[in-house]
Amino acid sequence: MSKRIVVAMGGNAILYKEASAQAQQQEVMNICHSIGNLIIEGYEVIITHGNGPQVGNLHLQQRAAHSTENPMFPLDSCVAMTQGSIGYWLQNSLSNILRKLGSDRDVVSLITQVEVNMADPAFSAPTKPIGPFLSKQKAIQEKEAMGGTYIEDAGRGWRKVVPSPKPIDILEKTSIKKLLDNGTIVICCGGGGIPIIKNKDGYQGVEAVIDKDLVAELLATELEADTLLILTGVDNVYVDFGKETQRALSQVSSSELRELMIEGQFPPGSMLPKIEAAIRFTESKKGRRTIITSIKNAGEIDKGKGTHII
Amino acid sequence: MSKRIVVAMGGNAILYKEASAQAQQQEVMNICHSIGNLIIEGYEVIITHGNGPQVGNLHLQQRAAHSTENPMFPLDSCVAMTQGSIGYWLQNSLSNILRKLGSDRDVVSLITQVEVNMADPAFSAPTKPIGPFLSKQKAIQEKEAMGGTYIEDAGRGWRKVVPSPKPIDILEKTSIKKLLDNGTIVICCGGGGIPIIKNKDGYQGVEAVIDKDLVAELLATELEADTLLILTGVDNVYVDFGKETQRALSQVSSSELRELMIEGQFPPGSMLPKIEAAIRFTESKKGRRTIITSIKNAGEIDKGKGTHII
Repeated sequence: MSKRIVVAMGGNAILYKEASAQAQQQEVMNICHSIGNLIIEGYEVIITHGNGPQVGNLHLQQRAAHSTENPMFPLDSCVAMTQGSIGYWLQNSLSNILRKLGSDRDVVSLITQVEVNMADPAFSAPTKPIGPFLSKQKAIQEKEAMGGTYIEDAGRGWRKVVPSPKPIDILEKTSIKKLLDNGTIVICCGGGGIPIIKNKDGYQGVEAVIDKDLVAELLATELEADTLLILTGVDNVYVDFGKETQRALSQVSSSELRELMIEGQFPPGSMLPKIEAAIRFTESKKGRRTIITSIKNAGEIDKGKGTHII
Repeated sequence: MSKRIVVAMGGNAILYKEASAQAQQQEVMNICHSIGNLIIEGYEVIITHGNGPQVGNLHLQQRAAHSTENPMFPLDSCVAMTQGSIGYWLQNSLSNILRKLGSDRDVVSLITQVEVNMADPAFSAPTKPIGPFLSKQKAIQEKEAMGGTYIEDAGRGWRKVVPSPKPIDILEKTSIKKLLDNGTIVICCGGGGIPIIKNKDGYQGVEAVIDKDLVAELLATELEADTLLILTGVDNVYVDFGKETQRALSQVSSSELRELMIEGQFPPGSMLPKIEAAIRFTESKKGRRTIITSIKNAGEIDKGKGTHII
């Protein structure tokens, strides 16, 4: 029985209180305990992660030192850097846990480029905010110096926004598959992947942020995974979330979930993209399922924990 | 005929004038043109690179923004970040060049951990300077706040120094081999690798810098490479460098080279570690050779360019 699973988590599952490397490594260790259980149960695991807070902090560091001698990098290179740090923390921690569990499986992180299309409507209407809030004057200065789009966020100041285009291809997919087929646990597509476009010179980085849930779905489809496991801050998907009538969903068909989505049960920007990815992946082929649950429940999905979308 | 080659270059081959991502990517492209030639000629290529100037700039950025909300990372995580950025630039550029040359070989970067031994004498006598020059007062403050060793550099101020221990194992070597055997071009052990030690909890990052020439030699030995190609700022190794009697070495046996080394022909800190790595690798097995040359000559080693150590 093939049990290939793509595990996706947000960058804020790793950095949600303390930003030190030590504190983030501690959170990573908690996550890897759950993932270690899945591996011991026989799952073939691929891990992908967000990088929102981490790339935000790197951006602030690069701004703080910005000069001719040490200039800020565009987003593609910054995403690559967070793939390095978060990938290292995950592979180090998961290897250590696996060794304690008696497994000597290799765990590796691959720097991953994800293709987007310049014709994607997202490029003409950037929506994803990055970096700090600025005064109007400062925003105008930065736009003149470094380009980009800045929008006003009611009352809080001006902020740079970048496009969030749809992922269309994972460039390193062949090597990811080869490693998986050899029994290696692969960490890839961190931060939604390094956004690149194809032009006459080949593939080239662009200033954009790719949604990590969409990339996780693409990754799961490309790798012919059976399960997409989306880790989030809650144990289950809820109906009437925060109301007296709130109830957790335990098992739900993708068509039922779609009806609930159309009812407006899931807030955009948090649960909605996960629900959309879940429906698409689950319906992409017979037998595929998506599970949405918390990190602490991740190791116990076979004991019925979480919301199973079938 | 197997033609496996490990290509090693310094971080200052990539950042030697402009520090912007665009400028560094331009230098990477020049390097990848030479490496592309080797691949087309039938070489099975593994690439490793230094990160001195890049990790130095990251360190300055992290210092500039250092606060409870956005604290500096220890060196192991910083090395991982530069493996991400430099690895991305190399794999992106080399893939583009290979496609133009009609090859669709995969090029990937692996985040790589390299084991060192806490009993290594380097840990009791740190020598490798990192970060900016500080006043004595500032150095004392930083030592109190974050620990570490600071030494005075005659007249120029105080500087943090970290150990430079010998590499003893490459943790991800099994996956590197699998990828190579599948025809993938692998970039790994960037910045000398992420330094880790083994303790009761498994492998754990340490504040250290591993010499990239020593790691390149270990990598070439572990992967049973035939050739170690060390790229540097000069076309050849020279005898009487800078004197009237200066002459370039074209082909030299490892024993002749050892004699020249003992004569004191090669300055410590620049050419000497390359010479030492060259002698050890060349003598480690019959048929192995090391070539030391410049980036522009790297694609033409089979036309006799560079210093061939046999």
